[in-house]
Amino acid sequence: MAFMSGFTPYFIAVFCVLIVCFWIQLQREKKTKELKGESDSTSKAKPWVDQDLQDDTEIPSPNQGDDEEDDPGSELDLPHVPYAPPRYAVDSMLERSRDFYTLLNQRRSVRFISPEPVPREVIDNVIRTAGTAPSGAHTEPWTFVVVSDPDTKHAIRTIVEEEEEVNYRQRMGNKWVKDLAKIRTTWVKEYLDVAPYLLLIFKQTYGIGTGGKRKTHYYNEISVSISCGMLLAALQNVGLVTVTSTPLNCGPRLRVILQRPTNEKLLMLLPIGYPSDDATVPDLKRKPLDDIMVHI
Amino acid sequence: MAFMSGFTPYFIAVFCVLIVCFWIQLQREKKTKELKGESDSTSKAKPWVDQDLQDDTEIPSPNQGDDEEDDPGSELDLPHVPYAPPRYAVDSMLERSRDFYTLLNQRRSVRFISPEPVPREVIDNVIRTAGTAPSGAHTEPWTFVVVSDPDTKHAIRTIVEEEEEVNYRQRMGNKWVKDLAKIRTTWVKEYLDVAPYLLLIFKQTYGIGTGGKRKTHYYNEISVSISCGMLLAALQNVGLVTVTSTPLNCGPRLRVILQRPTNEKLLMLLPIGYPSDDATVPDLKRKPLDDIMVHI
Repeated sequence: MAFMSGFTPYFIAVFCVLIVCFWIQLQREKKTKELKGESDSTSKAKPWVDQDLQDDTEIPSPNQGDDEEDDPGSELDLPHVPYAPPRYAVDSMLERSRDFYTLLNQRRSVRFISPEPVPREVIDNVIRTAGTAPSGAHTEPWTFVVVSDPDTKHAIRTIVEEEEEVNYRQRMGNKWVKDLAKIRTTWVKEYLDVAPYLLLIFKQTYGIGTGGKRKTHYYNEISVSISCGMLLAALQNVGLVTVTSTPLNCGPRLRVILQRPTNEKLLMLLPIGYPSDDATVPDLKRKPLDDIMVHI
Repeated sequence: MAFMSGFTPYFIAVFCVLIVCFWIQLQREKKTKELKGESDSTSKAKPWVDQDLQDDTEIPSPNQGDDEEDDPGSELDLPHVPYAPPRYAVDSMLERSRDFYTLLNQRRSVRFISPEPVPREVIDNVIRTAGTAPSGAHTEPWTFVVVSDPDTKHAIRTIVEEEEEVNYRQRMGNKWVKDLAKIRTTWVKEYLDVAPYLLLIFKQTYGIGTGGKRKTHYYNEISVSISCGMLLAALQNVGLVTVTSTPLNCGPRLRVILQRPTNEKLLMLLPIGYPSDDATVPDLKRKPLDDIMVHI
């Protein structure tokens, strides 16, 4: 014991140093993880993934089950009713399928939009159409914000261009900049001022039921994207154009100026209008059927 | 120095023990992280999230930039061409927007599908229409697998029902089971045998260019979902019905029996056909326009 007591102070000193080293290492790892999680926008690992969209709101909190809305009078409790949609003869089906393909195949993403006014009722009907999309457990997790006020449009443009410039200059790798340069996208988006309407499509990451209880929105991003597909078809059907953009890292700022609640996240921003007289599009082709379809 | 050498062996022993402890701790943390990442399918944290869809293929590997396809002759290098889609008078626009809304508002998710044959050309045109959707950097990251072979349909049904039963009985919380019970979904999916076509929609999480180099597919899930929205509109337009399902945890097994490559992940499974004569749907309503639209 006398021998042991001789080096105990040194032992303790060394032990303490190692404990401190271990603690520092743990803190450093923790910090790295946090940084990875929060500042991917400035890293090059996944620059095109909008951090704001990577919400964890689909993960229920431990006691979320208790807080959840039970929907006692939900419409989903309703009984079944017969369903008999219109039925077309084979010839008519073939013709309709060809005509609809022809119509939608004329659709292109257009960045040159005319300032001419567009009847509001047409936009309303287009959004009504988008609202017919299916959604996980019929939650209808979408909010369509239509902006025609010039000041708000300009404020949106300012935010989008500021973030886009940062995206291009700092966040993106050369590959992305090169990919987009090919379709002549830049961070100057004049159409955000010019188009008679900007449509900002928000996904509701969760719902709020009566009494403020949270309601899970299963597959909300997929549902809202499907709805957007119907919206694009509806726009094409009335001769209006748009470009489907996913404004990277603008979501939180745009949400604030549009006064949307925190359960809503911006998924897409679409300028809507007639094409301008001098509108052009890149002369690209679509894959032929055999490249996108397999039959078994 | 003589004093120092007296406890050096003890010092080394203690040091080694601490190093080992430190290493064990690190390994343990690593393991925890891996488990968290891989076994969520059996945990209750996020039971409705398909692990197979949570691919990390959008994260480039450190040297992926070098491996990536440069698309030297890409169609995106093409020059711009004038774009002048059909323009309708205001009255006509209004009428078209109303008619299209009426058509799509009749669409419902239908689980009662008739075995009657449907012309293949109609299905081809519907898929051609879906292929006109916009996609991130025009990557067209979709594969539509049309199955009419009865044995393959039955094999698909077997896999889907097996996984669904596990989902319902083990993976899902009470909340989810209750939500879906309301729309009378069970894990028995007779329509997968009965429907003349099953359409399995795969998202290509990355592309493979000439020479086997990887091509980044930006926003592939959103793009494929938009394409699915157009497909649903095209089906409704010809009087066919479907139900948009996202078969949880079936992706890898279905991918294998359909012999799809590993860059493709199953996003949706749609049985397609005429509605059966006794088809019913839950008598649910859609939100009115004012609940989904905000005007600024």
